[in-house]
Amino acid sequence: MTSQEALFNYSLRLGDTSIILAQRLCEWTGHGPFLEEDLALTNIALDIFGRGKALLEYAAKVEGKGRTEDDLAFFRTDREFFNTLITELPNGDYAKTIIRQAMIDCFDLAFYTALANSKDETLAGIAAKSIKEITYHKRHSFSWVNRFGNGTEESFNRLQQGLDEIWAFTGELFEMNETDEILIKEGIAVDLNLLKADWEKEINQLLTKANLVIPETLFMQKGSRKGLHTEHLSYILAEMQSLPRMHPNAKW
Amino acid sequence: MTSQEALFNYSLRLGDTSIILAQRLCEWTGHGPFLEEDLALTNIALDIFGRGKALLEYAAKVEGKGRTEDDLAFFRTDREFFNTLITELPNGDYAKTIIRQAMIDCFDLAFYTALANSKDETLAGIAAKSIKEITYHKRHSFSWVNRFGNGTEESFNRLQQGLDEIWAFTGELFEMNETDEILIKEGIAVDLNLLKADWEKEINQLLTKANLVIPETLFMQKGSRKGLHTEHLSYILAEMQSLPRMHPNAKW
Repeated sequence: MTSQEALFNYSLRLGDTSIILAQRLCEWTGHGPFLEEDLALTNIALDIFGRGKALLEYAAKVEGKGRTEDDLAFFRTDREFFNTLITELPNGDYAKTIIRQAMIDCFDLAFYTALANSKDETLAGIAAKSIKEITYHKRHSFSWVNRFGNGTEESFNRLQQGLDEIWAFTGELFEMNETDEILIKEGIAVDLNLLKADWEKEINQLLTKANLVIPETLFMQKGSRKGLHTEHLSYILAEMQSLPRMHPNAKW
Repeated sequence: MTSQEALFNYSLRLGDTSIILAQRLCEWTGHGPFLEEDLALTNIALDIFGRGKALLEYAAKVEGKGRTEDDLAFFRTDREFFNTLITELPNGDYAKTIIRQAMIDCFDLAFYTALANSKDETLAGIAAKSIKEITYHKRHSFSWVNRFGNGTEESFNRLQQGLDEIWAFTGELFEMNETDEILIKEGIAVDLNLLKADWEKEINQLLTKANLVIPETLFMQKGSRKGLHTEHLSYILAEMQSLPRMHPNAKW
């Protein structure tokens, strides 16, 4: 794998992760529990979507084969997507969406803060812009976890169930492969091993405050680094890609 | 009808119109023709949603019966909604969504510019904030009408068909009733008769540039001022209200 290929893979992975998560969060638009929250979650989704678009634009540029970010978003199959599996899981109820978001926000804030020091200027720039946004996202999801965890019996139960369903997908956030190895040496990628202890500590504190118990999971799910996905991704892509694929050469 | 009742009705009508339109536009999120446009349209929807929320908050305050904007959004039936019918029409294809949006943006910019001079400070404030937003929305929809109208044969045909389907619903934008009469006298509401000639002139120019022909419509649809709606509103409300209604007393 060349440096250029690694940089393409890396940007694609980050872009896909953002686009697919944003796509999921957008499903809440107009269906949130109340108007204020509807607005908040859609705004969060838009931040993440904007970041994904910038990353796919960069991936397309690095690839240098004339593809655009739209080609990458709309004309790849699920096996060619590299988003983390946790982002493609169905939203479930609001508590599940929120606990997933807290896991991701906690990871993303540390990750993009580190990526802002990347030697790749474009990635560093995108990351720097994201820090402020993710800081807000994290405050939002963490405060909801607290509220649900210390709310009614039902809100607590739903939160715990959400956690049970998503926990096995959190390990993958820290998985690395050859792409990471090459780019870490060049000072471009973030060494995910360095983020793990802090993430675990913060998440443990959050869960303890919300009275939640980490499920006993025998193994962590993985696969996305190789383009292997849950069955859910195909449905997301079917919805997201149907219009552009119907009119591939449309001059809009 | 007292002044207070009229002010409640008026705020509710404007709020409903914004909320339902935003709800429709949000259906495009994640399904737009390309990423850039997806972001643009969702941002537009969020502006309109934010305005609707502010207007419903004000309606709730004016009513003074302890209802909140969420009560108003989620616990009224379709007969109690006063959004203009054009906002509840299905999106259709992108060309239809855009031509509807152009009609509404053209109206809204004139309307909210006038409302910014209202003697009611809250309405004037909401309106003033909206002018900049709607100026951008209008530039967006007008430029797309131009592009579709002067694009391919298919894009032109779709645009003309969209226009044919929505035209009969544009007359209602200018309809007034007792609510308007009372509030115009008090310097609070906008006299819609004063906006009509300019709107027709601008829309005529736009349609001419895009080679479109205004359909020969025998009569204009109306009903929303009295809470009479097309069958489409019930479906929107079913989707929008299902979650809050399932958990009416949930402490989120």
